[in-house]
Amino acid sequence: MNRFELIEQIKKTKSFLCIGLDPDLSKFPPHLLASEDPIFEFNKAIIDATKDFCVAYKPNTAFYEAYGVKGWISFEKTVQYIPKDKFIIADAKRGDIGNTSTQYAKAFFEAFPCDAVTVAPYMGEDSVKPFLQFKDKWAIVLGLTSNAGNIDFQIIKNEFEESNYETVLKRVSSWGSADNTMFVVGATNPTYFASIRKIIPNHFLLVPGVGAQGGSLQEVCKNGLNSDIGLLVNSARDIIYASKETDFAQRAGEKAYALQVEMSQWL
Amino acid sequence: MNRFELIEQIKKTKSFLCIGLDPDLSKFPPHLLASEDPIFEFNKAIIDATKDFCVAYKPNTAFYEAYGVKGWISFEKTVQYIPKDKFIIADAKRGDIGNTSTQYAKAFFEAFPCDAVTVAPYMGEDSVKPFLQFKDKWAIVLGLTSNAGNIDFQIIKNEFEESNYETVLKRVSSWGSADNTMFVVGATNPTYFASIRKIIPNHFLLVPGVGAQGGSLQEVCKNGLNSDIGLLVNSARDIIYASKETDFAQRAGEKAYALQVEMSQWL
Repeated sequence: MNRFELIEQIKKTKSFLCIGLDPDLSKFPPHLLASEDPIFEFNKAIIDATKDFCVAYKPNTAFYEAYGVKGWISFEKTVQYIPKDKFIIADAKRGDIGNTSTQYAKAFFEAFPCDAVTVAPYMGEDSVKPFLQFKDKWAIVLGLTSNAGNIDFQIIKNEFEESNYETVLKRVSSWGSADNTMFVVGATNPTYFASIRKIIPNHFLLVPGVGAQGGSLQEVCKNGLNSDIGLLVNSARDIIYASKETDFAQRAGEKAYALQVEMSQWL
Repeated sequence: MNRFELIEQIKKTKSFLCIGLDPDLSKFPPHLLASEDPIFEFNKAIIDATKDFCVAYKPNTAFYEAYGVKGWISFEKTVQYIPKDKFIIADAKRGDIGNTSTQYAKAFFEAFPCDAVTVAPYMGEDSVKPFLQFKDKWAIVLGLTSNAGNIDFQIIKNEFEESNYETVLKRVSSWGSADNTMFVVGATNPTYFASIRKIIPNHFLLVPGVGAQGGSLQEVCKNGLNSDIGLLVNSARDIIYASKETDFAQRAGEKAYALQVEMSQWL
């Protein structure tokens, strides 16, 4: 999906909600556990109940890989089941030397039908660029993450008199464009959004951390929206684990709908 | 495998060679492509021919993931086939917020029988620590990598008047110990080894970049060995793609043997 199509989808659904599909069997409604592929059954029900209220889905590969080959089969079925007009983000945080990053790009852009993959920037230019060589596909590079550990390396100041994450935003954005690169910026850092928007005014930001991690949608919108919307706001646990009963999908739909209503007021 | 056992295996095989199992169908001997699982057949032959000369195998997950679910089946069969007295490194460069990193650790320490997984440090403490909670399992954290992109973020100086990679070595080594943490240090940076050994004198280093990437084994040994050996030197392409003919495994064995002989002189 290209940038124009993504913006059209946001306008059509009046939503920039991304739903994190992070399956954890210990949080599943017990009645699902007897099925042959509980992860896929869970995701299928969540997708059916929420697809009118979101523009993107973001399965985090860790929650599939944890179940080995079986988990990857559930991942494949899930990304194949997601409607074609949704933006699919493989939240995989990959990144390696050049020839190896190309293999990761092939995995998520060819072997699995995803639109985007999250990428860790530590290994630099040749680790990121291979993800930018695929038409209408995206690298979503870690900028300032939502977790406590962002203080360890991202926020420390460097020789350019800026934080490391700012150097990441500047350098990575120069390797591609706002048509094939986005950045992860956690909702738990609203005070940073204004300065981030000065560095990358046009890029889409993927914003996790609203809900369970404590970020505020209002703060994110106030500081992060740009003239092309420029935001994909992710919520996972708050939506997909809204109930552990047989009504889990219905309750997920209600939670997604509430966020969509809130988002539509900003569009 | 714990540290004591790893050192014993190094002494027994007189080798600290790690062989990278990075399957790429385009580099395979053509006669293998007709088999049902060419990746596993290739790896099996390479393992049989090299196992007497190495102490570790390092499949890079990108080269399996690129083939989707089928690739993960080949990965599973490969790690199950590797002899139990070899140290198995899943070269996956994973890392995410705490609860998600725990899922990645379960993937490689429980769903797949690996001893270690490579980890990207950008997301900080809560992204690394979950990998350190498993008995006799290891996190191998990216320090100074072998690729050209290491200049973008790793080598730049920070507010502590050191390079970012040095801050990574210092902080990450304080979260675990030399019994559950190693670091990736590329062989292409021999001039850095002396200062790295000042920061982490006791940790094992996983050293890629010897061979195809241009690093010298002699330089690495001269500057990187410690009293417990402390090195796992990786070679992939030079060994596994030594020949594209039916003698590929034999030639791989010869290449591994030559490195083992060179290494034995340093022990």
